[in-house]
Amino acid sequence: MPVYRAALLGFGNVGRALAQLLQRKTDELRARYGLEVVVTGIATGRHGMALNPAGLDLTQALELAEQGGDLSQLSAEPPPTDSLDFVRRVAADVLFENTPVNYETGEPAISHLRLALERGMHAITANKGPVVHAFHELRHLARCQGRRFLFESAVMDGAPVFALYEATLPAAQVQAFRGILNSTTNLILSRMEQYGETLEQAVAYAQRIGIAETDPSGDIDGWDAAIKVAALVTVFMDRPFKPQQVQRTGIRHLTLDDIRAAAAQGKRWKLVCSARRTPEGDIEARVEPQLVGPESPLYGVMGTSSIVELETDVLGRLALREDDPTPHTTAYGLLADFLRAVGATA
Amino acid sequence: MPVYRAALLGFGNVGRALAQLLQRKTDELRARYGLEVVVTGIATGRHGMALNPAGLDLTQALELAEQGGDLSQLSAEPPPTDSLDFVRRVAADVLFENTPVNYETGEPAISHLRLALERGMHAITANKGPVVHAFHELRHLARCQGRRFLFESAVMDGAPVFALYEATLPAAQVQAFRGILNSTTNLILSRMEQYGETLEQAVAYAQRIGIAETDPSGDIDGWDAAIKVAALVTVFMDRPFKPQQVQRTGIRHLTLDDIRAAAAQGKRWKLVCSARRTPEGDIEARVEPQLVGPESPLYGVMGTSSIVELETDVLGRLALREDDPTPHTTAYGLLADFLRAVGATA
Repeated sequence: MPVYRAALLGFGNVGRALAQLLQRKTDELRARYGLEVVVTGIATGRHGMALNPAGLDLTQALELAEQGGDLSQLSAEPPPTDSLDFVRRVAADVLFENTPVNYETGEPAISHLRLALERGMHAITANKGPVVHAFHELRHLARCQGRRFLFESAVMDGAPVFALYEATLPAAQVQAFRGILNSTTNLILSRMEQYGETLEQAVAYAQRIGIAETDPSGDIDGWDAAIKVAALVTVFMDRPFKPQQVQRTGIRHLTLDDIRAAAAQGKRWKLVCSARRTPEGDIEARVEPQLVGPESPLYGVMGTSSIVELETDVLGRLALREDDPTPHTTAYGLLADFLRAVGATA
Repeated sequence: MPVYRAALLGFGNVGRALAQLLQRKTDELRARYGLEVVVTGIATGRHGMALNPAGLDLTQALELAEQGGDLSQLSAEPPPTDSLDFVRRVAADVLFENTPVNYETGEPAISHLRLALERGMHAITANKGPVVHAFHELRHLARCQGRRFLFESAVMDGAPVFALYEATLPAAQVQAFRGILNSTTNLILSRMEQYGETLEQAVAYAQRIGIAETDPSGDIDGWDAAIKVAALVTVFMDRPFKPQQVQRTGIRHLTLDDIRAAAAQGKRWKLVCSARRTPEGDIEARVEPQLVGPESPLYGVMGTSSIVELETDVLGRLALREDDPTPHTTAYGLLADFLRAVGATA
């Protein structure tokens, strides 16, 4: 039975959920796919790094992380000095890259993924930055190395949006897409409609439950949504596309009166992400609040749920919707990428 | 460049749409996947059959079929005597089986597919019968032969519902699903709500536009929906399951008053297809009219559109919705199956 060695770079909510999922699915991976996974390296930002080519004890690592302990005490070798040293030294077949996103440059995630591919690992990330800033480079490098660069969890929290395109729609051309991709703003608009909260109150709620950042402007002003649009254009339309090319209007100016007026017409304001090939061969992409009626697949998408709808040359409009994501769903996207990368078949 | 030889058994709306799609996608299949397809056999029910190992002229075949002519005049060999003789003699790498569905036995489609697999072809069908009556047998036979038995277009008209499960959700277990899978009844309920038509008037409309049969009871009484539920249970839950095991209530008793009363509450009647694993390890499956509110992904699905929502152990609820299918979308499902079968990669 093949044993794959995995390196976890980043051990926050998502990295830990992945470790738990690997534990929970151990028997199923053996029985259905005839394979095993051992984790040979874990790197955190501030709580140390551990390497063990024979495999780390995930239960111990998870306990230490929960307690805020230092993981380097688990290392069978001198702990790496930094994240690049970690990628350089870890004995692994696959790198799961889950460091914080850097919207402007995609670094240091891109360097981690590049080095992993150069060392012959599959490179898997939940990070949007490398998709927007280095998709074509990393895909090319992966092909040259006979490995995969995959990033299912970068958009829609592990729901199979990239796999839908790549693995189920061969010979299809995406002409346009439309969706709700930023859960913070969708939660805010849902709270304003359902509980009559003001924008400020709804933002405060989203911050309290840990969905919104202390500075919520990345969500409110549509930056996070624009980055996801750029990632989808880059992959679905196979064209490098930057967030700055997305025409972007956030939800800052929407008032409770606007929300109520929409409801009175049986409609809702949604922060709609969209892109379309123009007849001239360009791509027009937008993030903007739009009024949406009940016949639209976007209408019923509330709270932190999300959706994307594709227009192709071969099917009617096709929508994928995910309800109520958690860090566990993001972790599943990483596992699914791994199983695709190694060609696991049931 | 590999050249795949395809046999088309059935040359009605779907078979002809597939021929047109193969023509339209010729350059793209060469450029993106490095492969070609030639059609070496076409069999119709009442307008003859043609074989030509060097490839038939699809434009000629389509013209003849449109004119109601006899295809046997295109045959380079003595035409086959019947459909099994066609499968036995055609020189092909893949059979596209599109004969009329037989709900009770799945025949003769099962025999066609079995013989194709025995002869070393991939077996692809838009026919629900073989999925419900012979999935496990045909899948096993396909594996033994190193070939594929695929049927994307059997449910939801070519939208990638089976591929979503098989190719994008590895190591996921489907606990339950719920959806709208019969377009005739969904169109009827939509007409009753939107135009105030009675059930009889809406049925007559569906018959006029060619969606409903002369005897509409297969749709109205939920049989077609039950067969699709049985097909999804069989594949998603890997358990043979017959339409008779589905608890089935059709829409015959729904009145315009019921529809209006639902609308007054902001809800809609939908013929909901569902199945669920019970804690005891059984499967409970139903087709029945249910009241659905605007937060449900099913609410906005109108006319001939369809949807399926999956509950798994790894993601939040995940829904796939297709709007406004046509015979061209069913044909696309067949092409997608073919590209999966031969492992085409871009």
